[in-house]
Amino acid sequence: MLSTAHIKKIRLLHQKKHRTESGLFIAEGVKVVAELLKSNYNVKEILALPQWIDQNSSSLPANLQALPLTPKELARISTLSSPNMVLAVAEKPPDVLPDYTKVTGFMLMLDGIADPGNLGTILRTADWFGVDTVLCSPDCVEVYNPKVIQATMGSAFRVKTIYTDLAQVIDEIKGLVPVYGTFLSGENCYQTKFGSKGAIVIGSESHGISPIIESLVQKRLHIPTLSPGAESLNAAVACALVCAEINRASLIKI
Amino acid sequence: MLSTAHIKKIRLLHQKKHRTESGLFIAEGVKVVAELLKSNYNVKEILALPQWIDQNSSSLPANLQALPLTPKELARISTLSSPNMVLAVAEKPPDVLPDYTKVTGFMLMLDGIADPGNLGTILRTADWFGVDTVLCSPDCVEVYNPKVIQATMGSAFRVKTIYTDLAQVIDEIKGLVPVYGTFLSGENCYQTKFGSKGAIVIGSESHGISPIIESLVQKRLHIPTLSPGAESLNAAVACALVCAEINRASLIKI
Repeated sequence: MLSTAHIKKIRLLHQKKHRTESGLFIAEGVKVVAELLKSNYNVKEILALPQWIDQNSSSLPANLQALPLTPKELARISTLSSPNMVLAVAEKPPDVLPDYTKVTGFMLMLDGIADPGNLGTILRTADWFGVDTVLCSPDCVEVYNPKVIQATMGSAFRVKTIYTDLAQVIDEIKGLVPVYGTFLSGENCYQTKFGSKGAIVIGSESHGISPIIESLVQKRLHIPTLSPGAESLNAAVACALVCAEINRASLIKI
Repeated sequence: MLSTAHIKKIRLLHQKKHRTESGLFIAEGVKVVAELLKSNYNVKEILALPQWIDQNSSSLPANLQALPLTPKELARISTLSSPNMVLAVAEKPPDVLPDYTKVTGFMLMLDGIADPGNLGTILRTADWFGVDTVLCSPDCVEVYNPKVIQATMGSAFRVKTIYTDLAQVIDEIKGLVPVYGTFLSGENCYQTKFGSKGAIVIGSESHGISPIIESLVQKRLHIPTLSPGAESLNAAVACALVCAEINRASLIKI
């Protein structure tokens, strides 16, 4: 049986403040926990229904035992409205700032993405298209928010997500890597000739790209519409369409 | 001042049961209500903060007056955690079943899309790419769910969303229109030659396309990945990527 203190300790991780203080976060559900266990994240604790433990205990690392709990106990510590078998507590990895001037390929820069589902979907899409670095402005939602982790379906553990001052990074890479941004007007992205590297800025759901970053973008991209009435796309969808277009030559050959 | 009975009547529309019984739904926020007012939906009631009324009352239809309310009253009737100026109550339009054999262009078939954000994003994307008909299996989330309406950003009022038995529709159109489905394996959609019409089946977030519908799909499409670890894409993202690819020749020319 879980002690009240133990339940309380895990429930504190539902809040950003306590995730920041402890350096820990929660990942939940069969698929997401499986991906966490495949990653090089340091998993501190697994709490699961007996069925999950029966099926998975043999594949757990030697230093990690799963604590059995009842569906009622799982519901008390879960962040989900329908808890799914297993909950893990893991350590956030240390922030390692890459040398941006040496980045190869494309990276994403998210300017104020506030919706957890959108950030999660963007990381899942980045992973799909082989984008390994996603820079987030400090006002983006936290990647260890449980809703973000769930929406990534495990991609959060493969894509490097770094919170940083985007203007400063653009200043470092300008002249070395083209900086694109998606706007409601600009060059048709289906006519753009993308090179082998670059940075793509995606603006926030409500305000688009912020004025400071907008002034630093070198190439304004636009995703054309076939409808007279539609005015904008969801940020994660816009991001996916640009990622696909950048990589289209490789995608055709797969 | 809003009466308690009035508040109660609007709050009932937060629930599907009462939306079904009354034939009414809620749309909220400056942008979504503006799109609703531009549409041919029958708007029954507008409740707004005085600032909104000052700016918009002259453009309201003659038979429609906006009822002023306080931020506190708006919060009581709102479905949003941060209410945004205005809430409208409108009538659901009657279901008009098209003659599917005469459909031109592409239509979407959603098989069990359960997440309101995903359905909303799919309708917004459909609108963007000129898809005017979206068929939903009966187990899809309701389009008049307030979270769906908000996520469409007004596209719900332009795209026809019809709840129907997808298998029956496929039976009607087979031989006339190719039926595609997106799967984790199949023909690379970037190599597919799409014609000028077709139906695209998008499966549910957790189970993909259901076995009965899968057996009726004529062409299995696959969106290739550039990552060894990624296993799937968000349903709305997959839908957007296929819609873009189908329309790529037109998009390049815009």
